[in-house]
Amino acid sequence: MIEPKIPKGFRDSLPEQEIKRKNFERRLEQVFESYGFVPIDTPVMEYTEVLLGKGGGETDKQIFHFTDNGGREVALRFDLTVPLARFVSAHRSELQFPFKRYHIAKVYRGEKPQKGRYREFKQCDFDIVGSDSAQSDYEILSLMAASLAALDSGSFKIHISNRALLNDFLKKIGISDKSSDILRAIDKLQKIGLDNVKAELLENGITEDKIDSLLLFIQPGESDYDKVLSHLEELIGETTASVQRMKDIGVLMDAEGTKSLFAFDPSITRGLDYYTGVVFETFLDAIPSIGSVCSGGRYNNLTGLYSNESLPGVGSCVGIDRLIAAQEELEKGVAVPPRMVDVVIFADSSISASDSVAFASQLRKKGIRCDIYLGDRKMREQYEYAQSKGAQFAIVAIKDSKADIKNLATREILSGLDSDQAASMIQKRF
Amino acid sequence: MIEPKIPKGFRDSLPEQEIKRKNFERRLEQVFESYGFVPIDTPVMEYTEVLLGKGGGETDKQIFHFTDNGGREVALRFDLTVPLARFVSAHRSELQFPFKRYHIAKVYRGEKPQKGRYREFKQCDFDIVGSDSAQSDYEILSLMAASLAALDSGSFKIHISNRALLNDFLKKIGISDKSSDILRAIDKLQKIGLDNVKAELLENGITEDKIDSLLLFIQPGESDYDKVLSHLEELIGETTASVQRMKDIGVLMDAEGTKSLFAFDPSITRGLDYYTGVVFETFLDAIPSIGSVCSGGRYNNLTGLYSNESLPGVGSCVGIDRLIAAQEELEKGVAVPPRMVDVVIFADSSISASDSVAFASQLRKKGIRCDIYLGDRKMREQYEYAQSKGAQFAIVAIKDSKADIKNLATREILSGLDSDQAASMIQKRF
Repeated sequence: MIEPKIPKGFRDSLPEQEIKRKNFERRLEQVFESYGFVPIDTPVMEYTEVLLGKGGGETDKQIFHFTDNGGREVALRFDLTVPLARFVSAHRSELQFPFKRYHIAKVYRGEKPQKGRYREFKQCDFDIVGSDSAQSDYEILSLMAASLAALDSGSFKIHISNRALLNDFLKKIGISDKSSDILRAIDKLQKIGLDNVKAELLENGITEDKIDSLLLFIQPGESDYDKVLSHLEELIGETTASVQRMKDIGVLMDAEGTKSLFAFDPSITRGLDYYTGVVFETFLDAIPSIGSVCSGGRYNNLTGLYSNESLPGVGSCVGIDRLIAAQEELEKGVAVPPRMVDVVIFADSSISASDSVAFASQLRKKGIRCDIYLGDRKMREQYEYAQSKGAQFAIVAIKDSKADIKNLATREILSGLDSDQAASMIQKRF
Repeated sequence: MIEPKIPKGFRDSLPEQEIKRKNFERRLEQVFESYGFVPIDTPVMEYTEVLLGKGGGETDKQIFHFTDNGGREVALRFDLTVPLARFVSAHRSELQFPFKRYHIAKVYRGEKPQKGRYREFKQCDFDIVGSDSAQSDYEILSLMAASLAALDSGSFKIHISNRALLNDFLKKIGISDKSSDILRAIDKLQKIGLDNVKAELLENGITEDKIDSLLLFIQPGESDYDKVLSHLEELIGETTASVQRMKDIGVLMDAEGTKSLFAFDPSITRGLDYYTGVVFETFLDAIPSIGSVCSGGRYNNLTGLYSNESLPGVGSCVGIDRLIAAQEELEKGVAVPPRMVDVVIFADSSISASDSVAFASQLRKKGIRCDIYLGDRKMREQYEYAQSKGAQFAIVAIKDSKADIKNLATREILSGLDSDQAASMIQKRF
């Protein structure tokens, strides 16, 4: 006999969990489609060279890679952004630009599994490729806000900044040659705290007075979009292109009436090298500690690895796993099993197999989710079964195409209902 | 620069294709849920030993397997049935039985790619685990019929038989010791033709007169459920348990009024060793040549590899790829791009970015899928963009929160509509 175990860092998804996930995904898809975003899919496995570039490097250790049966070096995708770049390059002539796509799919990381970190998990990305405008930036921000609202995850704040804005400032104070190191240090602010960031900047040869200026820049002491932007403009000393970009985005927030959902937060830099413009992270008001639930930014050289022509893009990624975890934490103690079916037809001597098949068929045609209990006739097991599926009703007898229906919460029984009456009663939930 | 290519046998799914697939999956999920089937998910990667059993053998060459970063032998799942068996064994105590689950997910085969055969493809399985009754058998058959009806794939016939019935007959004519070889030979009937099946049976040491009896059994010359069943009962010479099972199933077909969807076809055996009872395959009337689009059967020892206790099951698998291919073949020449959005707001000097954001926001709140064109103002490109997304309408001007809307087919323009008027007009489609 073989132990039915799965590799470390991998998970099964049980029905209750999977229903929650599907529910999230369906709502997100509906919002994406309301904005004109279309779905794509790409292979889970790609050539290692295509995913990692010719170098490989840091990411290398974190990905699942191997030699396939034909002797080629292949790897499992570790995100959905690299496959998007490859996809857009490969299908350039078949796509209309600006190309707005979403992609909800599994990705793989070989890193050491730890609490809340898995080797297989789903990502949910949405991007606009082929446009570098404030309107594209804002469309992603608007879609983030609409997505989070659709998921009923409570109130949230989208923290936004712009990498180019920080670069303008570094230029102004004469330390733009170290911008990568500085971005990386600032990115750790929340994780390692102010003192450690300072220490790291000192190590990188930034003088104390410059560090003080920098901290004044990234910690404006407030989050109102317009006020912070004015403050930053003042520190930079002129209306640079990136200042103007953030003003244009602010105008669109006002046009849609969403500005209160945003916090201008110049400490947001996002670690990854490829961001070049706006960057953003989203925190739930009720559980900020769970981390950002929706992050992204603008990258202006998506396709450079695969094509001579570089394409600008802006996009974001919803953390479905984190949002589900947050919802579970908030619901703690009051969680109700999802309603997987509306009614279960019980196995009973007063119900023939033919009658249950015929009655179920009628109910399903009227939009009722009707489950037939197929086990033996022990009553306790049938009730447990109905409960585990979140059913509110059970059919306990059928005679002459008429059913007796029991409300499982109140134990009330309505007798002799035909399928029309039964369906409308179930729809009204008694 | 790296060529943006993907491994042989793998595919990208472009938006048009992916929308069709999602549309199929959503409809199937709705039907599954109406029968009380619930979704699960399992890892794409599992331990090789868990997927293949201790032996390995024939399947071995066909699967992607490798050593992971921690030195463990792992493989990509090659179907959803083995993971179901592993899942049910691992989560036995957390599940309620009979357990009805569906699973739509990607599987991997290392075999040589050829026309219509891919190394990565989606399977869509639904099974009932923990019940061995005619009612369970029929529930899967009923769900198959409902699923195919929901997909609008035209008329179809579900060919059904029962392995045990054939075994009863082999016993009767005294060749039951060769049943595996015989099943395998008969399974090839459609593929290699009658003469080759005969030859194979002869090679396996079956005498000519037994072969003749066998052919009389598997080719009843007609497909009416009750008539064929009577014919087989006569040949077997008694009402065995499997004859009774098929009678019971027939009664349930009558109860739901589905019997005309079924063809009793004793030549159906399904090659795989694990089937023990009913077996079925489904063919579209319009394109039978595309092969079975929904197949499966009863297996009565699903979990034996991982558990002392064996669990009976019955299940089926919808061939979404084949059904999409069939639909494309039937639509040839008249295919219309799917309607991905309802309306596109054009980029025009008469529309400010703020106005388009605000108007789009209003339309989306009213359930309209509204795309904003984010490229430059060349008119030809905008029309191509709208067409590629299947939009019927474009907004060509906005002034004082009122829009001019163009019907892209008739070129008619309605002017000065507020968002309520615009939404109701778009919903009515002019």
